[in-house]
Amino acid sequence: MAAITEPDALPGRLSQITRSAPEVIATAELRIETGGEGFLDITAETQRFLAEAGAQDGTFSAFLRHTSASLTVQENADPDVLRDLVSALRHLAPRDFGWVHDAEGPDDMPAHVRTMLTGVSLQIPVLDGRLQLGTWQGIYLIEHRATPHRRQIVLQFTGSRAGKNADASLSTRPKML
Amino acid sequence: MAAITEPDALPGRLSQITRSAPEVIATAELRIETGGEGFLDITAETQRFLAEAGAQDGTFSAFLRHTSASLTVQENADPDVLRDLVSALRHLAPRDFGWVHDAEGPDDMPAHVRTMLTGVSLQIPVLDGRLQLGTWQGIYLIEHRATPHRRQIVLQFTGSRAGKNADASLSTRPKML
Amino acid sequence: MAAITEPDALPGRLSQITRSAPEVIATAELRIETGGEGFLDITAETQRFLAEAGAQDGTFSAFLRHTSASLTVQENADPDVLRDLVSALRHLAPRDFGWVHDAEGPDDMPAHVRTMLTGVSLQIPVLDGRLQLGTWQGIYLIEHRATPHRRQIVLQFTGSRAGKNADASLSTRPKML
Repeated sequence: MAAITEPDALPGRLSQITRSAPEVIATAELRIETGGEGFLDITAETQRFLAEAGAQDGTFSAFLRHTSASLTVQENADPDVLRDLVSALRHLAPRDFGWVHDAEGPDDMPAHVRTMLTGVSLQIPVLDGRLQLGTWQGIYLIEHRATPHRRQIVLQFTGSRAGKNADASLSTRPKML
Repeated sequence: MAAITEPDALPGRLSQITRSAPEVIATAELRIETGGEGFLDITAETQRFLAEAGAQDGTFSAFLRHTSASLTVQENADPDVLRDLVSALRHLAPRDFGWVHDAEGPDDMPAHVRTMLTGVSLQIPVLDGRLQLGTWQGIYLIEHRATPHRRQIVLQFTGSRAGKNADASLSTRPKML
Repeated sequence: MAAITEPDALPGRLSQITRSAPEVIATAELRIETGGEGFLDITAETQRFLAEAGAQDGTFSAFLRHTSASLTVQENADPDVLRDLVSALRHLAPRDFGWVHDAEGPDDMPAHVRTMLTGVSLQIPVLDGRLQLGTWQGIYLIEHRATPHRRQIVLQFTGSRAGKNADASLSTRPKML
């Protein structure tokens, strides 16, 4: 709640500015069982977290608590894209590179490299309780290890809360995006 | 507004701490027309957003709503650096890899890989209304597709507001960085 | 301070939600002297910043003000992992690529590419004043240049403050994670 739209649109390519009050930081943990190497869509779980948290306007962030899996935002339409992304990661960080670290199996060190290249945290803006993803974007956990693993993701929302009376100094506004 | 400096500097390599009150979340959309593959400097547009939003101290974040373009912070001095970065991305995710996904043209799947390697969201601290970029840093949209595209970026600022009376419990402070 | 746990756990894989009030944005600068190419663990310095800032629940972020070094979260157990990560970066962005930009030495352009692939900003959730890193995760500055450099990192915490009386509308809660 608690958001306004500027009365006059800005010139140029910048839209009107929406303002809200930072009212809450909501944090939860999402536990995922992966099926081995590949992409897992966690967009629906993320949107559910935002609904449960009563999120209105603000920022969603996710942090993966591991070093051999990662998080990314990628195409949600053609599954071939995700298959090709796995091929690309295998090519960029192959098993047979002559890694020094091999105590945890031949798939472990490539998994660390792939994690470094893709990252363990991501942030997405939220308006009216909805992730502001593009039409073709989904949120994915990428499992880089060959075998199934249990993964923990910390989900967080910082922003205004839905369903409250508007703040005295701020009023509601039409959906911007 | 609303920020203080600790009276005593911390020992070691950590500077004094500046404190401000989270007062506003400002969100807008930036629309960019790209000219095909390459880097586009969006630093000035970003700084303008912060000025329009009345940003004082806090965090700026940008989120690109696409899966074949990305955002990065890179050198703003020698244009050859940007050209070399394009060469590097072409080498890391080439067109002739034998991608399965080719329904959208030979430049589409490499664009997805390059997006995965560089990311669609970034965060930069703001103090006294200024992005705390280093001297040689600029904010870039990287267009990975061969042809011009329309791109949408959600800009967000979370922090204190400029131009207000100081909060009762917090006072102004000298520029830290 | 100021956090509650939902009375009923959510079904499925999502944990209870912890709520806190955004009360402060604390910002400081960390100066690091690197010893040339390699990984530098800055986890302890980061945790010290959070303690000095009086951080309770919220988000920690770090931003590196350079374009030839970067920040990452990686394994803190076997040093061989970090050595292999350096090898991987050397392989992905080699010195002898035929870079156009070579005015700052043969190690400069590869450093820019490695920075683009690994990033200059990161975000980690904080609960009860502790970074919510996984067991094997540490925060690293990666120096990509061959020689020692002075690096500046802006550290920021946004969230609730420790040691205050609980907010009227929110109460303390057990540790969640």
